[in-house]
Order: sequence, then C-alpha cells, then structure tokens
Amino acid sequence: MKEIIAIIRPEKLENVKAALEAIECRGLTVVDVKGRGRQLGVTESYRGSDYRIDLLPKTRLEIIVKDEEVDEVVDTLVKTAQTGDIGDGKIFISPVEDVVRIRTGERGENAV
Amino acid sequence: MKEIIAIIRPEKLENVKAALEAIECRGLTVVDVKGRGRQLGVTESYRGSDYRIDLLPKTRLEIIVKDEEVDEVVDTLVKTAQTGDIGDGKIFISPVEDVVRIRTGERGENAV
Amino acid sequence: MKEIIAIIRPEKLENVKAALEAIECRGLTVVDVKGRGRQLGVTESYRGSDYRIDLLPKTRLEIIVKDEEVDEVVDTLVKTAQTGDIGDGKIFISPVEDVVRIRTGERGENAV
Ligand SMILES: Nc1ncnc2c1ncn2[C@@H]1O[C@H](COP(=O)(O)OP(=O)(O)OP(=O)(O)O)[C@@H](O)[C@H]1O
Ligand SMILES: Nc1ncnc2c1ncn2[C@@H]1O[C@H](COP(=O)(O)OP(=O)(O)OP(=O)(O)O)[C@@H](O)[C@H]1O
Ligand SMILES: Nc1ncnc2c1ncn2[C@@H]1O[C@H](COP(=O)(O)OP(=O)(O)OP(=O)(O)O)[C@@H](O)[C@H]1O
Ligand SMILES: [Mg+2]
Ligand SMILES: [Mg+2]
Ligand SMILES: [Mg+2]
Repeated sequence: MKEIIAIIRPEKLENVKAALEAIECRGLTVVDVKGRGRQLGVTESYRGSDYRIDLLPKTRLEIIVKDEEVDEVVDTLVKTAQTGDIGDGKIFISPVEDVVRIRTGERGENAV
Repeated sequence: MKEIIAIIRPEKLENVKAALEAIECRGLTVVDVKGRGRQLGVTESYRGSDYRIDLLPKTRLEIIVKDEEVDEVVDTLVKTAQTGDIGDGKIFISPVEDVVRIRTGERGENAV
Repeated sequence: MKEIIAIIRPEKLENVKAALEAIECRGLTVVDVKGRGRQLGVTESYRGSDYRIDLLPKTRLEIIVKDEEVDEVVDTLVKTAQTGDIGDGKIFISPVEDVVRIRTGERGENAV
C-alpha cells in the first residue's frame, strides 16, 4: 500500500475529486495548507513597491491506495491538476505498511 | 519507529486523547481535515431536493511511536474511536527512519 | 528521497524559512496544528484554579528533499527552531519513493 500526497492549486480541487471518483478512487483526506516551491513564492508590485508573498495557499490531498492503483491515481492527478504554469504542485509517494478500518477492525488491503 | 495516522470523528478526540494518555502514549499532533471514504460522503434531503456533502469534517492525528508500541496504540485508537456506524475512520501505519528532539538534539528512539 | 516533518513553535517559522532559503532548501508545505509532547501540554493557574491546556498551537513543516540534503536541512531546523525550553518541537524523517512535478510530469530526484 502507498500514501500519495498531492499539493495542488485550491481551485483544482473540484476537478480532481470528480476525476478520482470516476476511476473509483474514493478515500481521500484534504486540508488547506500554504507552501512554496523552487521560485520561493511570488513577487508582486503595490503602489510602486515590490513585495514577496513567500507562502501561497495550496490544498493538500492524502490518498492511501493499493500498490496496483498508484499509477492510475498519479496520472489522474497530473492530468486534472495541471495548468502548465509554475506552481501547479507536487506529488509525493511513500510506503504504507498497514491500514485499519476503525468501524470493523479490518486490516491491510481490504481496509484501504 | 512508526508513524500512525488516524482519521477519526471530531467528537471522539477527547476520548481518544484520554485513552492514549492512560497507556502513556503522550506525543501527538492534531489537525482538522475534511475527507471522504468508500461511500463518498453523505446525501441529505433539504426541502424536497437531495444534495451530497462529499467531504465531511474529520480530525487527523499523527502519532510517532517506537515499534513495540504500535499494537497497543492501534488497539486503543480502534476501541475509543469506534461507534460501529460508517465513517468511523481509518488508521495508516508507515515507517519512520529517524526522530530528533529539537530542544536537546537527541535522536532515534530516545527522541520519540 | 526523504520526507522531513518538523513540528515547531509558530513564532520560529520566519527564522526557519529564512534559514532554509539560505541553504537553498526551497520547497516547503506548512500547516497550523495543535499538539502535545511528553509533558502533556501545560498547566496554568487562573483565579486560584489550575487548569491544563493539553494541546498547544504548533506549526508543521513538510519538506521533501534528496537523500544528500537531509543532514543539512535537519541541522538547520534544529539550530533555528531551538530555544532550549521544553516544547521546542520534533523532527521526523521518512522514506519517499517517488516525486512528481505536476506542471511538467518530471519524476524522481529532478522533481524534488
Ligand atoms: N520539496 C518540497 N517539499 C514540500 N512541499 C513542496 C516541495 N516542493 C513543492 N512543494 C509544495 O507544492 C506547492 C507547489 O509547488 P510548485 O508547483 O511551485 O513546485 P515547483 O517544484 O516549484 O514546480 P514549478 O517549477 O512547476 O513551479 C508548494 O507551494 C509547496 O506547498
Ligand atoms: N483511502 C483513504 N485515503 C485517505 N483518507 C481516507 C481513505 N479512506 C478514508 N479516509 C479518511 O478517513 C475518513 C473516514 O473514512 P471512513 O471511515 O468513511 O472509511 P471507509 O473505508 O468508507 O469505512 P466505512 O465503510 O466504515 O465508512 C474519510 O473522511 C477520509 O478523511
Ligand atoms: N511522538 C510524537 N508524535 C507526534 N507528534 C509529536 C510527538 N512528540 C511531539 N510531537 C509534536 O511536537 C510538538 C512539540 O513537542 P515537544 O517539543 O514538547 O516534544 P517533547 O518530546 O515533549 O520534547 P521536550 O521535552 O523538549 O518538550 C507537540 O506539540 C506535538 O505536536
Ligand atoms: Mg514553483
Ligand atoms: Mg465510509
Ligand atoms: Mg514537550
């Protein structure tokens, strides 16, 4: 099992959720975050002065899936969260050793 | 060392914290999140129309523990977060390679 | 690649961000959390009564880096987040198997 963390543009969340649902990827945990990437935020001008906003609002998705689902979920995330402009976000994939469904106590792949 | 992530019902947080304290599991990081599981949220009726709330409020606990503590912590989480109704939540267990206590610089199991 | 999670004092965030930038560690995701460590929060007195605040406000940083960057980032976090008083926070290091830059589809170390 794997944990897929995706940091996306907040305005892409609705699209991404619908696309995940369409591939039967249902479980999902979402939280609002702030972040910066390689460009260290953005610099804006206001009344002739430049100032930097160094942490921009993003949305963090946490999706636990079976190993064989990783590729389709990652492809779907890239396709639906991409605009082509800098700041589109990142995906991080990590190992998960066990999953438990609290209602039933089921464990492992059946609990995903 | 392991990371235990538990997504629970917000109204279970007080019980869960007390039960963890009772087994000497002290370190804990908490954040409010939204999420969906296999049922994709809930459908409600309002003035004759159905609408779906697709992300429900949940509470995310992050608990780093020594390997030998995992089973007791997971059992305690299941016991205290369970209602028996759908939506009780999930637990995810992942490997952690190192821990640092910032105050002292201690590392590894002594820092957990 | 590794995931470095740091739970720090909120008032240390500005220092920490600047210090990370100075070592060319740019990508960073931040969220406000609450937590407790070994001391289980703090006990305060108010009008002659003691009461415990069991979850204190903290800031959670999530930083994905290449393996060879871990030591310098951890050292920088410890140096800049430390006050010497209890509650300075913790760092957790975990494995990351793959990274994707959503804009370009790049994967692996080039996407970090
Ligand atoms: N190395 C990283 N560690 C943790 N979070 C990151 C990292 N890189 C990016 N992020 C998160 O992803 C968000 C979007 O990053 P962004 O898309 O700007 O990445 P990038 O590598 O700069 O790519 P691009 O060149 O397309 O802008 C950031 O605001 C931050 O929350
Ligand atoms: N695969 C998953 N990945 C990430 N988060 C998940 C996943 N499954 C569930 N969650 C999180 O846990 C919360 C509760 O999920 P829930 O208890 O409904 O899981 P379930 O598998 O549908 O079990 P049940 O049949 O008992 O409802 C969700 O709102 C979401 O935040
Ligand atoms: N084992 C843990 N699992 C998850 N989060 C933790 C853990 N330990 C600490 N934290 C998080 O780090 C924050 C700060 O912890 P703290 O610095 O008090 O750790 P500590 O081990 O008690 O060290 P100290 O003795 O220096 O206070 C907590 O509020 C919590 O959010
Ligand atoms: Mg960027
Ligand atoms: Mg459910
Ligand atoms: Mg403490």
